[in-house]
Amino acid sequence: MSEEFTLNIEESNAPHAPPKVDYGAVPASATGGFSSNLASSPYHPVTPQNLLPSPSIPYKPLTVQMQQDLSSAECDAVASVQTMADECELGFRETNQSITADPAKDLYKAMYEWIDLNQNVFVSRLAEAVAIPSVSGDPTLRPRVLQTVAWATKWCESLGGVTEPVDLGLQTLPDGSRIVRPPALFATFESTLPDVPTLCVYGHLDVQPASKEDGWDTEPFQLTEKDGNLYGRGATDDKGPVLCWLWFVEFHRKFNLPLPCNLKCVFEGMEESGSEGLEECLKSVSETFFHDVDGICISDNYWMGLERPCVTWGIRGNVYFAVEVRGGTKDLHSGAHGGAVQEPMTDLIKIMSTLVDSATGKILVPGIYDEVDELTEEEKERYERCDFDVASYANEDTGGMPLLSQDKATILMARSRYPTLSLHGIEGAFAGAGAKTVIPRTVVGKFSIRTVPHMTIDHVAECVKRHVVKVFDTLGSKNRLKVNVIHAGKPWMGDLNGYNYRAAAAATKQVWGVEPDYTREGGSIPITLTFEEVSGGKPAILLPIGQGDDGAHSQNEKISRRNYIVGAKTLGTYVYEFSRMTQEEKAKH
Amino acid sequence: MSEEFTLNIEESNAPHAPPKVDYGAVPASATGGFSSNLASSPYHPVTPQNLLPSPSIPYKPLTVQMQQDLSSAECDAVASVQTMADECELGFRETNQSITADPAKDLYKAMYEWIDLNQNVFVSRLAEAVAIPSVSGDPTLRPRVLQTVAWATKWCESLGGVTEPVDLGLQTLPDGSRIVRPPALFATFESTLPDVPTLCVYGHLDVQPASKEDGWDTEPFQLTEKDGNLYGRGATDDKGPVLCWLWFVEFHRKFNLPLPCNLKCVFEGMEESGSEGLEECLKSVSETFFHDVDGICISDNYWMGLERPCVTWGIRGNVYFAVEVRGGTKDLHSGAHGGAVQEPMTDLIKIMSTLVDSATGKILVPGIYDEVDELTEEEKERYERCDFDVASYANEDTGGMPLLSQDKATILMARSRYPTLSLHGIEGAFAGAGAKTVIPRTVVGKFSIRTVPHMTIDHVAECVKRHVVKVFDTLGSKNRLKVNVIHAGKPWMGDLNGYNYRAAAAATKQVWGVEPDYTREGGSIPITLTFEEVSGGKPAILLPIGQGDDGAHSQNEKISRRNYIVGAKTLGTYVYEFSRMTQEEKAKH
Repeated sequence: MSEEFTLNIEESNAPHAPPKVDYGAVPASATGGFSSNLASSPYHPVTPQNLLPSPSIPYKPLTVQMQQDLSSAECDAVASVQTMADECELGFRETNQSITADPAKDLYKAMYEWIDLNQNVFVSRLAEAVAIPSVSGDPTLRPRVLQTVAWATKWCESLGGVTEPVDLGLQTLPDGSRIVRPPALFATFESTLPDVPTLCVYGHLDVQPASKEDGWDTEPFQLTEKDGNLYGRGATDDKGPVLCWLWFVEFHRKFNLPLPCNLKCVFEGMEESGSEGLEECLKSVSETFFHDVDGICISDNYWMGLERPCVTWGIRGNVYFAVEVRGGTKDLHSGAHGGAVQEPMTDLIKIMSTLVDSATGKILVPGIYDEVDELTEEEKERYERCDFDVASYANEDTGGMPLLSQDKATILMARSRYPTLSLHGIEGAFAGAGAKTVIPRTVVGKFSIRTVPHMTIDHVAECVKRHVVKVFDTLGSKNRLKVNVIHAGKPWMGDLNGYNYRAAAAATKQVWGVEPDYTREGGSIPITLTFEEVSGGKPAILLPIGQGDDGAHSQNEKISRRNYIVGAKTLGTYVYEFSRMTQEEKAKH
Repeated sequence: MSEEFTLNIEESNAPHAPPKVDYGAVPASATGGFSSNLASSPYHPVTPQNLLPSPSIPYKPLTVQMQQDLSSAECDAVASVQTMADECELGFRETNQSITADPAKDLYKAMYEWIDLNQNVFVSRLAEAVAIPSVSGDPTLRPRVLQTVAWATKWCESLGGVTEPVDLGLQTLPDGSRIVRPPALFATFESTLPDVPTLCVYGHLDVQPASKEDGWDTEPFQLTEKDGNLYGRGATDDKGPVLCWLWFVEFHRKFNLPLPCNLKCVFEGMEESGSEGLEECLKSVSETFFHDVDGICISDNYWMGLERPCVTWGIRGNVYFAVEVRGGTKDLHSGAHGGAVQEPMTDLIKIMSTLVDSATGKILVPGIYDEVDELTEEEKERYERCDFDVASYANEDTGGMPLLSQDKATILMARSRYPTLSLHGIEGAFAGAGAKTVIPRTVVGKFSIRTVPHMTIDHVAECVKRHVVKVFDTLGSKNRLKVNVIHAGKPWMGDLNGYNYRAAAAATKQVWGVEPDYTREGGSIPITLTFEEVSGGKPAILLPIGQGDDGAHSQNEKISRRNYIVGAKTLGTYVYEFSRMTQEEKAKH
């Protein structure tokens, strides 16, 4: 056991005076001092009823007014943010006890207690973040994305972080005009401890579009608590998780505790718009910002189910195809010309009908399964163990869309460890309501194949192209065919036995008292691969805090109060465990 | 031969003084006096070079300012119409000769000469009509449709017509809001002759959308002459033909000539938006407005080719299907859920792929050809005779979309006397540019079958429903299927041996010097059937004046100056021939 360093906290009535702390000696190495006491720290439920407001320490809103003129509607929105913050009379409540820097002794306990005590502040701050409609997909709301980045920058700076807004250049809109991409926020929090590792965390500050008219039960940009859930656009994707990282720093700042490792944050504002510009940016700082990064943590996905936390160790890739069938130079009237011409739609629909089987979901493109890894017994068991309720998935998550299988492991594997093909739609065809009698001149069928290790983009593209051309050739059509890959991302798997995964597992056990599920994501998070690449192959991990029913891109997106608050504990604990495991790993070599 | 009545015209410098005419006695019956001198009246080419402006008789614009406030942009548009009209210094030039009311002697000659002499006025008036962007499909332009109806009303009134704007009720927009449908304009021009028949003519004053950005070479709402063509939205569909009917009345008004029959005009403003409300309206006046109608003429379609005029004696019907495959209540992310769910798109695409053959265009729905009339040798010969250039059709009309056959008669029959099935698109699927990874919750496939005599809507619907359900059943899908007919119109054929067709053929021979082609339309003009119905089975005819390459719904819509001017002669001559043939027919019974 290493020496302990203790800090004694006395309650203070002065709003912003730092707590009085009695530093012990800083240990030469913190590694030995970490030993999670798992058995004694099961998940203890949050009891908001016990929390009383502390009017003497008013909550300070972070809202940042934009430099540029805002429209009247925008001003109203900002005003409402201000009002909401002003109305929040909660202040940070401080723990009435000594804290040692030894996680095994006091630190976790104090951190958890501080988080529990201040959870209403956490919620207020999340409400403030949600209130800024930072929809990156809507150019008219671009100023609000910039505002959100500025808001987070201000907070990071108040926590002593070194911030850097990184210019990501211009975005070209469909009409050809160009607008500024929101800068990425790079924030570095140096530990005062020597020789600690460096953790890079990633999150995003932008959100999907949302409006009450889309079917929300509450105002999407007004965080609303109902039955223990915090409803609001961005609550779980990804403002909640981003805030958790900063609460971790806030806690250490509050008590003048040294961070267990250096923390480098990358928070972007274009994730919901394809993370435009970020990949190039990260590559350009590979030798600088990333030179000392020992691991990456991304909290931007979700548990499989509702109760058991998970660690995500794989994501599917995606190869997105656009099959174009070109007829003539103009749309034709089906009355005037139907019967005379070879309609591109007829050809395209025939092609699209040969790609996937309705009854099984099996991809019908020859060769497509050639590169898929064999299923191991261990893997299968992991899926069988997962906390995942088929009935609730069928009813809620998929909105009642019929399942191809009712078996839990089969569903989970179909969603994440096997490839799938989805037909998304047709560009150029009539898509509106009502009856339009058009023969579209050119139609582009859109479909994508989710890929898994160790499928390669080249092989997938080759199989699809060969198949589509072959089908088209049988049609006897004189239209012109083009098969394009318009987007491609590789699948990814982490090393479950590596230090980053061991850290996440330990943190999960520490906070939740259970072994996490080991899941793979069905969707693509291509930035994961980029982070590993730019850090020279350092391991990345996906450590979600939201539940499987959070509805990230849907109406009524939410994060439960429990998952947000305990998520803050989990991510905080993970940073400690990451520091410990990384140092253990380094000591081996 | 009946008596002649002669009118002598002296040139007058007073702008609006009626020409001095010397009426002869009005004949008790005009029938005997009609005998077209076909041999001596071949088509005489229009020579605009010979036309000189006549500044002493300024052109009087008809532009009607709307009562309601127009937006600034709208005011600009109105101003430009005014300016254009003001700049036109052409006035009516009057013929310097006697006119008798006997078509066989002087009347046709005088009418044709007057039309030729005043053709620049005709073009200016058409420019004025085109300048009002009366796009019925764009609710923001609804005031301009109303303005166009008011404009036509004013003209009709100035010609002594009894006008009646007929309220067609409200239109419900997709967002649920309601706006007024443009009133239909009913205008009646009574003949001063006793016991003459009554002809009802139909046209529409609204147009398809158009903007320069869509690929027009000229401003779509600014009539522009180039190489003998008058380019502008609505020039041929259907403002040009509507104006021709009024020029016919204008000529008679100008020379105080009695109309050869009563003329009842129905001009609507919603044709391009499904003629909403008109059918009910026509039915409601079946016993009043239509009680004395002896025949109907619709000039709202086109020749097959470029040179030979035609008379159209059939139109295809249309049964428009919406096949809905419903999965769940929300769209899903293809990464998160692809593989787990039975995707509605997969099912729908399979169904749509079984409807029509790519190589032949043959409909694959069993039973669909059961009710199609056998082809007669006479019919086939009519198609073989048609003025129709396959090469120009392939290159220009279809914009290069490959043809299913290169044989003229086969193409024409495929377009008009056989049924065809076109796949239009999918509602609910992704239709935009780029890559969206959505699993649509519900998709609705849209396709329609053009029907021909004597296919019935019920049989077609039954065949399709049975087929679609059968295919769906083989898919093993748990999604929910619905097959709806969302629009249906019957096919129609006129009686080629009836008086209305004999009149149109005679007029065509009189003006163009050739036997018309007898064509059938591929598209549906359902109002044709309604007119026949509400007039108690009186014959309708389609008498187009525009060429096959006019591009009614496309970019660069045009009518050639020749077809507009000679079209005015044709429709005018047709009215005389209609009167004659109808009276002959009545005399038989």
